[in-house]
Amino acid sequence: MGNFKGHALPGSMFLVVGLWWAGKSSFWYATRSKLSAAHLSSRAVQRRLEVIEGATILSFSVIGMLAEQFSAHGPRLHLYDYAERQWHCLMNWQHATMYLFFGLAGAVSLTVHATGSAPLALDRMLLGVAFFTEGFLFLHHLHGRAVLDAHIHQLLLYAVFGGAATACLEVFHRGNVLLELLRASLCLLQGSWLWEIAFVLYPPSGVAEWDLKDHSNLMFVTMCYCWHFGFSLLTVSAVYCTVCWVVQSKLKRTQPMELGLLKTTDKEQESEDEI
Amino acid sequence: MGNFKGHALPGSMFLVVGLWWAGKSSFWYATRSKLSAAHLSSRAVQRRLEVIEGATILSFSVIGMLAEQFSAHGPRLHLYDYAERQWHCLMNWQHATMYLFFGLAGAVSLTVHATGSAPLALDRMLLGVAFFTEGFLFLHHLHGRAVLDAHIHQLLLYAVFGGAATACLEVFHRGNVLLELLRASLCLLQGSWLWEIAFVLYPPSGVAEWDLKDHSNLMFVTMCYCWHFGFSLLTVSAVYCTVCWVVQSKLKRTQPMELGLLKTTDKEQESEDEI
Amino acid sequence: MGNFKGHALPGSMFLVVGLWWAGKSSFWYATRSKLSAAHLSSRAVQRRLEVIEGATILSFSVIGMLAEQFSAHGPRLHLYDYAERQWHCLMNWQHATMYLFFGLAGAVSLTVHATGSAPLALDRMLLGVAFFTEGFLFLHHLHGRAVLDAHIHQLLLYAVFGGAATACLEVFHRGNVLLELLRASLCLLQGSWLWEIAFVLYPPSGVAEWDLKDHSNLMFVTMCYCWHFGFSLLTVSAVYCTVCWVVQSKLKRTQPMELGLLKTTDKEQESEDEI
Amino acid sequence: MGNFKGHALPGSMFLVVGLWWAGKSSFWYATRSKLSAAHLSSRAVQRRLEVIEGATILSFSVIGMLAEQFSAHGPRLHLYDYAERQWHCLMNWQHATMYLFFGLAGAVSLTVHATGSAPLALDRMLLGVAFFTEGFLFLHHLHGRAVLDAHIHQLLLYAVFGGAATACLEVFHRGNVLLELLRASLCLLQGSWLWEIAFVLYPPSGVAEWDLKDHSNLMFVTMCYCWHFGFSLLTVSAVYCTVCWVVQSKLKRTQPMELGLLKTTDKEQESEDEI
Repeated sequence: MGNFKGHALPGSMFLVVGLWWAGKSSFWYATRSKLSAAHLSSRAVQRRLEVIEGATILSFSVIGMLAEQFSAHGPRLHLYDYAERQWHCLMNWQHATMYLFFGLAGAVSLTVHATGSAPLALDRMLLGVAFFTEGFLFLHHLHGRAVLDAHIHQLLLYAVFGGAATACLEVFHRGNVLLELLRASLCLLQGSWLWEIAFVLYPPSGVAEWDLKDHSNLMFVTMCYCWHFGFSLLTVSAVYCTVCWVVQSKLKRTQPMELGLLKTTDKEQESEDEI
Repeated sequence: MGNFKGHALPGSMFLVVGLWWAGKSSFWYATRSKLSAAHLSSRAVQRRLEVIEGATILSFSVIGMLAEQFSAHGPRLHLYDYAERQWHCLMNWQHATMYLFFGLAGAVSLTVHATGSAPLALDRMLLGVAFFTEGFLFLHHLHGRAVLDAHIHQLLLYAVFGGAATACLEVFHRGNVLLELLRASLCLLQGSWLWEIAFVLYPPSGVAEWDLKDHSNLMFVTMCYCWHFGFSLLTVSAVYCTVCWVVQSKLKRTQPMELGLLKTTDKEQESEDEI
Repeated sequence: MGNFKGHALPGSMFLVVGLWWAGKSSFWYATRSKLSAAHLSSRAVQRRLEVIEGATILSFSVIGMLAEQFSAHGPRLHLYDYAERQWHCLMNWQHATMYLFFGLAGAVSLTVHATGSAPLALDRMLLGVAFFTEGFLFLHHLHGRAVLDAHIHQLLLYAVFGGAATACLEVFHRGNVLLELLRASLCLLQGSWLWEIAFVLYPPSGVAEWDLKDHSNLMFVTMCYCWHFGFSLLTVSAVYCTVCWVVQSKLKRTQPMELGLLKTTDKEQESEDEI
Repeated sequence: MGNFKGHALPGSMFLVVGLWWAGKSSFWYATRSKLSAAHLSSRAVQRRLEVIEGATILSFSVIGMLAEQFSAHGPRLHLYDYAERQWHCLMNWQHATMYLFFGLAGAVSLTVHATGSAPLALDRMLLGVAFFTEGFLFLHHLHGRAVLDAHIHQLLLYAVFGGAATACLEVFHRGNVLLELLRASLCLLQGSWLWEIAFVLYPPSGVAEWDLKDHSNLMFVTMCYCWHFGFSLLTVSAVYCTVCWVVQSKLKRTQPMELGLLKTTDKEQESEDEI
C-alpha cells in the first residue's frame, strides 16, 4: 500500500518487536549472569514466552497479509486481470509475500518451542530467511521510482540485510547477548525508518512536500538514517540499563534467603539455550 | 540446450537430489538424536549410502554431459569451426562444463567415502566448488538476452550461490542438520525454478507467450521466486516431519528389548562425522 | 570542512590512535606470552588504561564535533536555512555525525570498563559500528565530485570498512593479537591517507595543483595507497618489535627474584579478557 | 611489462609455488594422520622448510622487482618525468608494488619461523594481505582496455581474491589441510591463467590474433577459466595421492621396528601448529 498507513503500520510492528527483543534479551542476560533468580527465569517460563512471541509474530503477519489483500484497493486474491491482460495489484501481492515469510518464521518458532522436536536454532534461521526475503523483494521493487524514493528505500535495506545477517550468525552463536541486542536495534531502526519514509513520501497535509530529485535532500536523508541508528542504539541501551537495574534491585531483596536453595536447580533451568 | 527439455531435465535431477538430501539428513538427525537405532544407522550403512549417492551424482553428470554433446544439435566434441572461423555450440560446451564439475564432486565423494584416505569434508568442498562454478558460468552467460530472460536466470543465481555458501560452511560445521536442510531446500528451489524457466521461456504450444520486456512481468517473476522458496522450505519440513514420525514409531517397537545391548556399540558407529 | 586542516586534523587523530593501539596490543601480548610481569600488567592497570582510552576517544570526538559546528563557516547547530529553503552546511553536519558515533563508541568503552556491568565485547562492537557509519557516510558523500576527488575518498573506504570488519571479528575472537595489530595498521593507514588527501586536493601554495581528471593520476594514487598500507604495516611491526624488546629486557632484570611469588597471582589478573 | 614474458614469468613462479604448497601440505597431512613418521616430520625439519620457503618467496619477489625496474623499458627507479610532466612507466611500478607485498610476506614468514618471537599465524595474514593487494591493484588497473583484455584479467581476480580469502581463513583455522590444498590449487590456477593470458594477448608469431571485441571469445575464455580450475584441482589431487602413496609405502618398511620408540617424541614434534 503506497501510502502513509502502509508504511506506518509495519513500522509500528517493527518498533514493538524491537523493544520486546531488547527487553527479553536484557532480561535473560541479567538473570543468567547473576547465576540465580530461578523463580523468575525458569525454563518453563522461557519456553512459554517464546511460544507467545511466535504466536504474536504469526498473528501480526496474518493481519498484515489480510490488510494487504482485503483493504480498499487490495487484489482480494485475484492475481491476474484477464480483461486488461495485466497483473493485478502486484505491490500488494509483494507486501503480502513479505508478511508470509515472517508468518512462516513465527509458525516455526512456535512449533520449535512448543514441541521441542526440531533443532532450536531453526527459529533464528527462519527469521534470517524472512529478513532476507524482505530485503530481496525491496531490492527488486524500486525500478522506475524517483531518486529520493528509491534511495530512502535502499537505505532500509542496510537494516534489513543487517538483521538477516545477525539472525544467521545467531544460528552458530546462539545466546550471544550482543547479537541479540544488535538484532533488536536493527529492528527498531527499521521501524523508525518506515515512519520516516511515511513522513517524507506522504507528508501530512499542511506540510511542504519534499523535492524528490534534489541531491541535497538525498544527502540529508542518508545522514538522518545514521541518526535513527544512533537513536535506536540509545533506546536499546536504555532498555538494557532499566532491565538490569530492576532485576538487580529485585534480586537484592530475594537473594539472601533463597540463594542456597536455588543453586542446584538453577543450572538445570538454563539448559535450553545450550546445545 | 535452449529449449524446454534442456531446463526441465536438470530441474528434475535437482528436485530428486534435493528430496534425497532432505530425507537423508532428517533420517540421520532423527536416529542420532534418539541415541539408538543402531541397526538402522550403522556406520557401514551410512558409508555405503554416501558411496551410492556419489555414484548417482557422477552418473547423472555423465548423462548430462553426453546429452549436451551428442543430442540433435550438439557439438559432438568439436570446439572450433575452422570453416566459419567461430566457436561451435558454445552454449552446449558451457552446460557440459557445469556437469563436469558436478561429476568431479560426485567422483570425489565416492572416493572419499569408499577409501577413507582423504579428509571427509572434501566432499562438501567439492560440492561447493561445483555450485560456485555453475553460478560463475551462469553469471557470464546472460549477455545480450531479453530483460526477462536475463532476470529469470539471475534469480537462479541466488539459489546456486546460496547452495555453494552452505556447502562451504559445512566444511567447518559438518553434521549441522540446519545447514544440510538449507542446502536441500536451495537445491529443491533450483530444480523447481528451472521448471519455471522452462514454462516461461518455452511455453507449451497453446499457451500465450510472455512479453519478455514488460516490467510488471519482471516484478511478478521476482515474487514468484519467493513463493518457490517458501514451497521448497515447506517440502523439506514435510519430509523432515514424516521421517521423524516414521523413525519414532519404529523405535517405539524395537527400543525396549534392544536398548541395553546397543548402547555401547552405538557411540562407535556415529563416529564417522566427527573429526 | 573541505580544506587542508579538515583532513589533516582527523588524520593526525587516527595516526595517534593507531600508534597507541599498536603499542597497547603489543605490550599485552608481550607480557601475556611471557607468563609473568604481574606488576606491569595487573588487571587494575589494564582496566584503567581502557577507561583512559575511552575517555580520550570521547574527548577527541567532542572536539571534532565542536570544531565542525562552530568553526568559521560552520552551521552553529542550524540544520535548515528557511530563508533560502535549503539545508545548511550539510558537509559539516555529516562530519559531525561521524564524530558522534566515535564519541558513542568511546563513551560505551568507558562505561563497560569502568562499571563492568555490560559484556566486554560491547566496546569492539560499537567501534565496528562507528567505523561502519563513517564508511557509510563517505560512500554516499561523493556524488558529483571530480574523478580523482571521488577515487581518493573511495580508497579510504577500504581502510574504513576493513577496520569495521576487524573490530566486528574481535567481538568473536577477542584478544587475538593479529586482529588488534591489523586494526592498528588500518587505523594508521586511514590517518596517513587523510594527510595524503589533504596534500593532493588542497596543495600548499607554491606546489603545482593536481589534474583531477587525468587517468594516470588515478593509477598513481591507487598505487600510492598500497605504499601507505605497506608503510603502516612496517610502522606497526617496528612498534611491536620495540615493545617486545623493552619488555623482555625489563623482565630479564626482574624475573629471577619475583617469578616464584607472582605465578599464582598472575593467572587471576589476566582473566578480564577471557569469556 | 605488457608482453609475453611479463605474464609467463610470474605465471611460472605461481605454478612452482602452487605445486610446492600442494606437496608440502599433503606431506604434513599424510605423516600427521598416520601418527608416526617422527624421523621424517621432526619439528626442526618443518621449521627449516618454512624458513627456506620464506627465503625463496622473498628472493622471487626481489628478482621480480628488479626485473620490472631495470628491464629494457623499465623506469630505473624514476617515478616522475619532469620533462614531459607525467608519471614514468606506471605499469612497471604497479607490478613492482605487487612483488613488494609478496616480498614482505616472505620476509615476515622467514622471521616468524626463524625467531619464533611473533604469533605463527602472522605468515598467513601477510600472505592474505599480499594476495589482496595484488587483486586490489589489478582491479584498478584495467581502465580503458579492450573488452577481452579487461575480462581476461578480471577472471584472474577470482583466483587472487579466492587465495586471499583462503589465507585469511587459515589465520583462524591453521593446519586445515583442505584450506591449504585449496590455496595451492588457486595458486596453480593463477599461474596457468597467466600463461593463458600471455598466449591470448601476445600470441607467438604465426598464430592468428584473437579478436579482442568478439563476444563469443569472451564466453569461451570464461569457460576456459573453469577448465583451468578443474585442471589445477586434478593436479593438486594427483600430487596429494602420490605423496600419500610414497609416505605410506615408506612407513610400511620403517614402522614395525620404530613405532614403539617414537610414540612419545612424536606428539611433542607436532606442536608447532597448535596454538
